[in-house]
Amino acid sequence: MELRQFHDWCRSQIIILWALSLAAYFACIKFIPIVKEVCLHKGRLFGKDIHKPYKTEPVPESLGIVVGSVYLVVVVLFQSVSREMLGEYNASISAICFMLLLGFMDDVFDIRWRIKIGFSFLATLPLLVAYDGPTKFVIPKPLIPIVGQETMELGIFYQGYMAFIMVFCTNSINIHAGINGLETGQSVIIAGSVLIHNLIELDGPFGDHHMLSLILVLPFFATSSALMYYNWYPADVFVGDSFTYFSGMTLAVAGVTGHFSKTLLLFFLPQLFNFVISLPQLFGLIPCPKHRLPEYNKKDGLLYPTYNFNLLNLYLFFSGPRNEGRLAAELAVLQILCSMLGFAVRYSHTLTNYFYDGNYILRG
Amino acid sequence: MELRQFHDWCRSQIIILWALSLAAYFACIKFIPIVKEVCLHKGRLFGKDIHKPYKTEPVPESLGIVVGSVYLVVVVLFQSVSREMLGEYNASISAICFMLLLGFMDDVFDIRWRIKIGFSFLATLPLLVAYDGPTKFVIPKPLIPIVGQETMELGIFYQGYMAFIMVFCTNSINIHAGINGLETGQSVIIAGSVLIHNLIELDGPFGDHHMLSLILVLPFFATSSALMYYNWYPADVFVGDSFTYFSGMTLAVAGVTGHFSKTLLLFFLPQLFNFVISLPQLFGLIPCPKHRLPEYNKKDGLLYPTYNFNLLNLYLFFSGPRNEGRLAAELAVLQILCSMLGFAVRYSHTLTNYFYDGNYILRG
Repeated sequence: MELRQFHDWCRSQIIILWALSLAAYFACIKFIPIVKEVCLHKGRLFGKDIHKPYKTEPVPESLGIVVGSVYLVVVVLFQSVSREMLGEYNASISAICFMLLLGFMDDVFDIRWRIKIGFSFLATLPLLVAYDGPTKFVIPKPLIPIVGQETMELGIFYQGYMAFIMVFCTNSINIHAGINGLETGQSVIIAGSVLIHNLIELDGPFGDHHMLSLILVLPFFATSSALMYYNWYPADVFVGDSFTYFSGMTLAVAGVTGHFSKTLLLFFLPQLFNFVISLPQLFGLIPCPKHRLPEYNKKDGLLYPTYNFNLLNLYLFFSGPRNEGRLAAELAVLQILCSMLGFAVRYSHTLTNYFYDGNYILRG
Repeated sequence: MELRQFHDWCRSQIIILWALSLAAYFACIKFIPIVKEVCLHKGRLFGKDIHKPYKTEPVPESLGIVVGSVYLVVVVLFQSVSREMLGEYNASISAICFMLLLGFMDDVFDIRWRIKIGFSFLATLPLLVAYDGPTKFVIPKPLIPIVGQETMELGIFYQGYMAFIMVFCTNSINIHAGINGLETGQSVIIAGSVLIHNLIELDGPFGDHHMLSLILVLPFFATSSALMYYNWYPADVFVGDSFTYFSGMTLAVAGVTGHFSKTLLLFFLPQLFNFVISLPQLFGLIPCPKHRLPEYNKKDGLLYPTYNFNLLNLYLFFSGPRNEGRLAAELAVLQILCSMLGFAVRYSHTLTNYFYDGNYILRG
C-alpha cells in the first residue's frame, strides 16, 4: 500500500480505535465500583491499607482484572475490524491474557516468585516465535573500527534479548509498587509515552509496526486511566498483581511489536533503576521482607524511608519524609521527566548522529 | 512439502508432543494435590459434595486452573518447536487462555451467565478472523435438485456458524455437570475421539489442519486424564468452571482448526441433547434452580431424578435410581457409544456416498 493510502487507512483505524478506547474507559469507570463489591464479599479479595492505620475497613484488591478483561474485549473486537499482522497480533493477545491470568491467580493463591518469573518467560514465547523483525544489532559508529563491521547478526541471541526485555518489563512494574496510585500512575505515563512515540513514527519507515503497537497501547492507556481514577491517593481500590503483570506485559508487547525496545527501556528508566538497586534483596544477599515499603508515622501522617533498597525508600531518604499522595505525585513527575529524557535521547540528532548513521536512526 | 516428507515430519512432531504430554500428565498428577491445599486454605475455593451429606469436610474447587495452566505451558513450548500455522495456533491459544481466565473468574466471583455467553463469543473472534479454511457449505446430494447447486458460498454466515459451534461447545460441558467424574469423563472421551479422528485423517488431503488439531488436543487429553484421576467418584477435588470452560473451548478449537465441526458435533451428541432439553429451563420458561441435579437418598445411598430437564435426570428417570459412581460410569459409556456412532456415520461409505460425492467426503 502506498504511503498516502497507508495514512488514510491509519486515520480511519485510529478513529475507530479511539472510539472503542473511550467506550472502554467509561466501561471501566462503571464496572470498577460494581466489581469492587464482588471482590469484597464474594471473592474475599481485599487488603489493609498499611499506610493508613486509622482506616479500619478493608480495601478491595485485584481490580486489575476488570481493566484487563475490558482491554482484552477491545483488542479482540478491534482485530475483527483491522485484520492486520494476525500472527503477531494474536501472539500479543495470548501473552497479555496469559499474564492477566497469572496475576489474578497470584492474587487468589499467592504464587511463588520463581514460578511467576518462569511463567512470564513462557508467555513471551508465542511473540518470539511470531517475531518477524530484524535480528541485527547496529554497532554504534565509534565502535565500528573495533568490531570491524557495521551490524552484527544476533539471530537466536536477539530473541534472548527480547525475552529478557519482556520478562523485565512484566516484572518491573510489580516490584515498583506499594503506595496508592504508584502502579497505575507509572503505567499510564509509560503508555502515554509509547502512544506519542507511535504517533510520531507512524510516518516513518516502520509505520505498520508502530500502528500495531498503537493498537495495543491506546486501549491500555484508556482502561488504566480509569483504574487510576479509583486507585489514586486516597485509594478506593487496590490494583492487585492482576494489574501489575498485565500492565508490564502489555507495555513490553507494545515495545516489541513496534520494534523499539531500546526506546522502551528509556521510558522504563525508573523501573530499571529500581530493579538494579533491588537486586541485592531480590537475590537474598540482604534480608528481604514481604513488603519493602516506607513506614507511616502516626504523629505527622508522613511516610519515612525504611532500610529496604528500592526507589521509594531512596527517594524519601534524599528528599525527606512525605505525605503518601505527594510522594505518588512526585514519582509520577519523575516518571514523566524520564520519558522526556527518553524522547530527547531518541530524537536528538546530534546524539543519534554521533552513534548511528541516519538510515539506522529509526531502528528502535 | 511432499506427502512422504509430511509424514516423517508429523512422526517426529508427534513423538515430541507425546513426550511433552506425558510430562504434562505427571506434572498435573504431582501439582493437583499441592494446589488442592492452596485452594482450601489460601484461595478459599471449596464446595460441599451435595451427593455425600455424610461427608463433612469441604472439597477443594477449581482445580481446572492447574490442568489449564500446565496445558498452556505445553502448547506454548511446543509452538517454539513446530512453528506451524502461527495465526491459527496463536488465535487458538488466546481463545483457550481467555476461557480459562473466564472460568477461573467465575469460580472466584460467580459471574452472570449472560456475561459468560458474551465473553465466550468474544473469545472465538480471533479464531474466526484467523480462519483460512473453506466457507462453502456442500449441499447433500438429495437436496441438489431442490437448491439447484452443489455448493453454497456462505461467507460471513459460515463464520457465524463456526461462532455458534464454538460458543455451544464451550458452554455445553458446563451445563452437563454436577456429579463426580462427569465433567472430566466426557472431556477425556471427546478428546480421545478427536485424537483418533485426527490420527486417521493425517493421511488425508487436510493433513496439516488435522496435525494442528492434534497438537491442540493431545496435551488436553493428557492433562484432563490426570484431573479425572482425582475427580472420579468419590471425588478428591472438584474441577470448577475453570475446567468446564477451558475444556469446552479447547475441544471446539480443535474441531474448528481441524476443519471437522460436523464430526465434532457427532462427538458432542449427549451434550447437544442435554442442551436442547435444557432450553426451557435455561430460557426461564420453566423455573430453574441454581443446580439442576438429582437428589441423594440417605436410606439407600442412591441418586433419584428431580423435575429438572437435563440428561442426568432423564437417564435416572428411565433407568432407575443409581449410585453416583455407577451413574458417572454409565454416562461415560453413553458418551463412548455416541463417539462410536459418530465414527460410524463419518466413515460409513454407504451413508456418506448417499449424501455427498466422494471428493467432498473429507470436508469435515
